[in-house]
Amino acid sequence: MLVFSLDNQSNKPLYQQIYEHIKQEIMKGRLSYGEKLPSARELASTLLISRNPVDTAYEQLMAEGYVYSLPQKGYYVNEITYIKEYGQEEEKNSPCFEEREESSQQWKYNFNPDEVDYSHFPYSTFRSVTRSVLEQRDFLSSGNPKGEQELCKEVAKYLYRSRGVQCELSQIVMGAGIGYLLQLLSVLFRSKKRIAFEEPGYVRAKGIFSSYGFEIVNLPIQREGITPEILEREGVELCYLTPSHQFPLGTVLAAPERQRLLQWAREKEGRYLIEDDHDSEYRYKGKPIPAMQSLDPKGKVIYIGTFSKALTPALRLGYMVLPKELIPMFHRDCGVYNCPVSRLDQQIIASFMREGYFEKHLNRMRKIYKEKHDIMLNMLQKYPEKVKVHGDYAGLYVIAEVLKRRNEQDMVNEATLAGICLRPLSAYYQDSVLLKKPAFLLGFALPDKEQIQKGVSILCEEIF
Amino acid sequence: MLVFSLDNQSNKPLYQQIYEHIKQEIMKGRLSYGEKLPSARELASTLLISRNPVDTAYEQLMAEGYVYSLPQKGYYVNEITYIKEYGQEEEKNSPCFEEREESSQQWKYNFNPDEVDYSHFPYSTFRSVTRSVLEQRDFLSSGNPKGEQELCKEVAKYLYRSRGVQCELSQIVMGAGIGYLLQLLSVLFRSKKRIAFEEPGYVRAKGIFSSYGFEIVNLPIQREGITPEILEREGVELCYLTPSHQFPLGTVLAAPERQRLLQWAREKEGRYLIEDDHDSEYRYKGKPIPAMQSLDPKGKVIYIGTFSKALTPALRLGYMVLPKELIPMFHRDCGVYNCPVSRLDQQIIASFMREGYFEKHLNRMRKIYKEKHDIMLNMLQKYPEKVKVHGDYAGLYVIAEVLKRRNEQDMVNEATLAGICLRPLSAYYQDSVLLKKPAFLLGFALPDKEQIQKGVSILCEEIF
Repeated sequence: MLVFSLDNQSNKPLYQQIYEHIKQEIMKGRLSYGEKLPSARELASTLLISRNPVDTAYEQLMAEGYVYSLPQKGYYVNEITYIKEYGQEEEKNSPCFEEREESSQQWKYNFNPDEVDYSHFPYSTFRSVTRSVLEQRDFLSSGNPKGEQELCKEVAKYLYRSRGVQCELSQIVMGAGIGYLLQLLSVLFRSKKRIAFEEPGYVRAKGIFSSYGFEIVNLPIQREGITPEILEREGVELCYLTPSHQFPLGTVLAAPERQRLLQWAREKEGRYLIEDDHDSEYRYKGKPIPAMQSLDPKGKVIYIGTFSKALTPALRLGYMVLPKELIPMFHRDCGVYNCPVSRLDQQIIASFMREGYFEKHLNRMRKIYKEKHDIMLNMLQKYPEKVKVHGDYAGLYVIAEVLKRRNEQDMVNEATLAGICLRPLSAYYQDSVLLKKPAFLLGFALPDKEQIQKGVSILCEEIF
Repeated sequence: MLVFSLDNQSNKPLYQQIYEHIKQEIMKGRLSYGEKLPSARELASTLLISRNPVDTAYEQLMAEGYVYSLPQKGYYVNEITYIKEYGQEEEKNSPCFEEREESSQQWKYNFNPDEVDYSHFPYSTFRSVTRSVLEQRDFLSSGNPKGEQELCKEVAKYLYRSRGVQCELSQIVMGAGIGYLLQLLSVLFRSKKRIAFEEPGYVRAKGIFSSYGFEIVNLPIQREGITPEILEREGVELCYLTPSHQFPLGTVLAAPERQRLLQWAREKEGRYLIEDDHDSEYRYKGKPIPAMQSLDPKGKVIYIGTFSKALTPALRLGYMVLPKELIPMFHRDCGVYNCPVSRLDQQIIASFMREGYFEKHLNRMRKIYKEKHDIMLNMLQKYPEKVKVHGDYAGLYVIAEVLKRRNEQDMVNEATLAGICLRPLSAYYQDSVLLKKPAFLLGFALPDKEQIQKGVSILCEEIF
């Protein structure tokens, strides 16, 4: 017999109180599979209420599968597969939810170069695009394992217009961030065993290839960047480059050097350049620098980009343009990998791009970032005896070389105490190269204008 | 001088016509960087309209970064980085958007065993959860590279309640579908070089390990499943299993066999069982079968699950529970991999679970799938001289063994002509084993009740 008392003072409707009580009884195993419930009429009369709330509660329990009905017979408790672990034992055995450590440090002046400006994200547009994708109800079935073709098309159009990248849809691979794409390349090129990287460079990318057993050949960046002669000497076939904005130094690989590297790649079969075009959306001076891929009709460049800087890193959305001649090999070796990005996200971004919101957002952010860049640059230039600036007029950070010979870690510690997040350039070197002078990457995307001014002035007046 | 005519008959407001015209001129390069625009007053008088629409258009152009203003001076054209590629050349050079081939075959009776029921997806709940996540505006910053802790916590609670899986949060790895998780395991275990699999089994999983250079050791499923003796004989250290619902045969690995395999794993260091718990949410008879992980206090089982069957495969969301002793190795070898799932999706699902909607949905779907399962089973049982059913009362498909000795491909072709999607069991064998009788996987999740009845009756009366 189901006996319990209802709370007439509660804000909860009666039907919900009944529903929750019966559900609890089932979940705790006090009502078990096949047990007959009182009829709605009986229960209503026991509880001294009208039948309506009881009927509603029973309907809800039926709809959710807790209860089933047999015609002419009544309501019965359904089989709930996780009854066992519920109940008294739960406290004792419940898993221990320790929190993972997280760098939850609240920075007053966050110059983290990996961050972007979130305050100007087009929330309401994004919400309305999401709403209309959800309304179309076409984001649930498995979809195309190679990625949503609508998104590939928008990415192809964007890359063509903004970076000069020429490709067919079949060359585009959608991935969950750059890490995933590099995993695919590690599989695709696993027989090569060695890969050349810029030093300093993108340490995480090196880590990924390294986790696949690749030997990382670190090539120190010279004035003219990586040269074919060095690649010849090292005997590598693969080279990972950031030609349009060297990460982290911020230099640009000049046109003649690009041509010489492309020439090197063409000279022997199996040689490829991996072009990581990480933050080329943002240049604040001069003409845009087209991607190396656009100079390469022979298909020796693998182009990689993401939405991390253009929208947000939290989307984990990246893309890769493969040379045509690699596609059959890719399908053979990587054909088992389904596109790892949810269809919902892909459709949201495709629609966001198709409606023109993406380019609007980029144009707006270019202006905002340029202002922040200019403020940071102006501030730093007030202290010519303290710092020298490198890698300016592009991307989302500048490099401040400190002219005093101070210990780098001491400066990071002092900055941390002052609430300033400071990333040393040395963190991007794998071979422990001694920098002549300490230098730091100062990201200007996340802080607002006042924070940039205040933070840089503290750095230059008290720390550098 | 900016001269153009406005269309007073148009539905477009005047300000929008002005905005679009100027934007076009900029995009096409006819107005270039630094060029001064007429003042709002001048333009209004040229166009013979009031100043209001011109002001609005200029504000819009400023907000989107096409135009900037200098105090006391006026409006200037901003730098748009993709002007170059725009314009006349576009037609000629624009990339060729050929569509990739897609199996867009419209099935009348879709018995694809990989599909789920989309018609009962809780769209409106999902929409409202999504809306509230979007309103909280906390899905943009980089987040925890190991995954949203809120989601890990919900997954841990769910696995504990429904599958008896015991774990701490640090053992949970969120991934983009099972494929991604298997990639991580391929990296983690790359020194082992060989892995045992069930035959027939999950061909895609074999393909992933194989793409990482693993030798796949196919172990034919005997009556008692894979035994420690076979693993000893083959000298493998890793074994991939589907103990609670063998994929594709649908059998259950019995408790004594589970204990023997766990014993095998404990006997030598470096031995691990990978438990793929693919569709254990759904059992329609008897007690739920706890995960093998729950029987393993020694940490020899790597547990893998996804939301593909419980919600939708399009989410590309999976999770893995690592044994504690593997965590340091995982951080060392796989620490460079950031969680590949967008924070938005993770937060939506975390909230969906926390609010109880996930279990509601599962309970509801169990009931719906049980009805569909029963209908399919009843239909098939009407033809005992034609088919024998295997692997029933669990998951989202049954196996129909055809008693006549007909050519399998002939039957697939005939079914296709009748609009029936039919997946032969032989597709899950890697070594070409001759099945004594042809058999097919009949998925009952996607079709509605009538389609199941009609489709099965066509199969049994005309094809099998």
